[in-house]
Amino acid sequence: MNVFVIGVGLIGGSMVLDIQREYPKAVIYGIDANENHLEEALKIGVIKHKANFNDLDKADIVIVSIPVDVQIAIVPKILDIITDDCLVLDVGSTKEKICKTIENHPKRRNFLATHPIAGTEFSGPTAAHEGLFYQKTNIICEVEKTAFKLQEKALEIFSKLGMRIRYMDVKSHDKHIAYVSHLSHISSFMLGKTVIEKERNERDIFDMAGSGFASTVRLAKSSPAMWTAIFKQNKDNVIETLDEYIANLQQFKDAILKDDFTKIHKEMESTNHIKQILNGIK
Amino acid sequence: MNVFVIGVGLIGGSMVLDIQREYPKAVIYGIDANENHLEEALKIGVIKHKANFNDLDKADIVIVSIPVDVQIAIVPKILDIITDDCLVLDVGSTKEKICKTIENHPKRRNFLATHPIAGTEFSGPTAAHEGLFYQKTNIICEVEKTAFKLQEKALEIFSKLGMRIRYMDVKSHDKHIAYVSHLSHISSFMLGKTVIEKERNERDIFDMAGSGFASTVRLAKSSPAMWTAIFKQNKDNVIETLDEYIANLQQFKDAILKDDFTKIHKEMESTNHIKQILNGIK
Repeated sequence: MNVFVIGVGLIGGSMVLDIQREYPKAVIYGIDANENHLEEALKIGVIKHKANFNDLDKADIVIVSIPVDVQIAIVPKILDIITDDCLVLDVGSTKEKICKTIENHPKRRNFLATHPIAGTEFSGPTAAHEGLFYQKTNIICEVEKTAFKLQEKALEIFSKLGMRIRYMDVKSHDKHIAYVSHLSHISSFMLGKTVIEKERNERDIFDMAGSGFASTVRLAKSSPAMWTAIFKQNKDNVIETLDEYIANLQQFKDAILKDDFTKIHKEMESTNHIKQILNGIK
Repeated sequence: MNVFVIGVGLIGGSMVLDIQREYPKAVIYGIDANENHLEEALKIGVIKHKANFNDLDKADIVIVSIPVDVQIAIVPKILDIITDDCLVLDVGSTKEKICKTIENHPKRRNFLATHPIAGTEFSGPTAAHEGLFYQKTNIICEVEKTAFKLQEKALEIFSKLGMRIRYMDVKSHDKHIAYVSHLSHISSFMLGKTVIEKERNERDIFDMAGSGFASTVRLAKSSPAMWTAIFKQNKDNVIETLDEYIANLQQFKDAILKDDFTKIHKEMESTNHIKQILNGIK
């Protein structure tokens, strides 16, 4: 089984590491615009061979794990090259645009739109590790548009990697993911920015920062290229979440200004409910 | 050595657990307005005896670990009761108000204002655990106002617990801590609120939330009583941080609205610098 991974970073790299473990006969080929990443991936065993787009005609599976703006340019070209039995899947954080882009492609049935809810704030091949997807949710969109045999192939892999599958339409995916993922990244980046700006000339101040701050700004380490593309593609939903977040911060601030600490207490108390919700997140 | 802990929660409880380990002859007494917490602390060995304020005249050390609004009412009373050789220290997240409150107390020299930068989002005696303070920063304010012998006593304990000491004036403490701690809590609470409000009728949606969301809203599990009091005491600084945070979010949103994704990329790239800063946080 020839598995091509396009983009040998955290997600693509981790996926082929698991595939190598589960399918000892799988041969992993890597394609990446970043030659250093490709060399690194080869060196640490994330991939077996470097490859290029002309080789895709011998692929059984192609995993597309690149920023979502590059994806919409590349996936149609991949579909042009692959054979009829090849499964192409993407792992991007937005799903409407990619599905729209290829809706009329003659090989639409070879494509499966997925979004594994897994990752860390790190990127590149050295961030890849086995078991990243174990007990994580994988959201599949427009499953009915993928050839049944290829669906089966994908589900077998996801099952071996230990993932829970959920099916969703692209609009719902992009809307809800804006709340539970994209907004977290912006709140974290802007928190990091606010503190760095303020404390630029006060290097010692970060001695005062504890694990709470570290946890809240963790996502501000994420890849700007990857996230710029996501915010662009999911613009309308992201704007909506930001409007609501800013409004909530504003009213919290107003309550403090008015010394309405009964309201402040109540707001936090009702948000404590997040405890029960987070218990369900691995 | 008789050690009294007032407020047998995460911070006070963890501190006396470490003290028991380091000073086998220490006898730990607990005082708490919450009788259940007191019973629990006794049962799990966080304290040796339940006590009340009348017993404080036999204290060698009193650790005050209660919400900062209750503290300003209680610390003067503690100082009234204790003997001349007793050390009273608080561990609150704001320092100006408590120092102001007792500045003219005849036993001011028995008090040491500290803020150990340690904790988790959990509270109560069962959240207490040994080693919480190891390699953490402890900020001490107005050290010169504490009797030298009692400073020594405190520093010996902090050293045995593995803490790094930093000295700071109360105004600087309250200003900078608003950025690196208080603002993180508000951003996290409001993120939790925004998502819960939106997704109230969509229980399944939290299946879509990953570890990134969990990390960013972790602090929204924190104690409303403790944090309401902190925001109240540190109102002016907190308002300033919120103004800057909201302005940053607003300009990020405006850049998305105007399709200025070059700016979005640049903003995130410069905030990535947080990586280096966070490397220094244990």
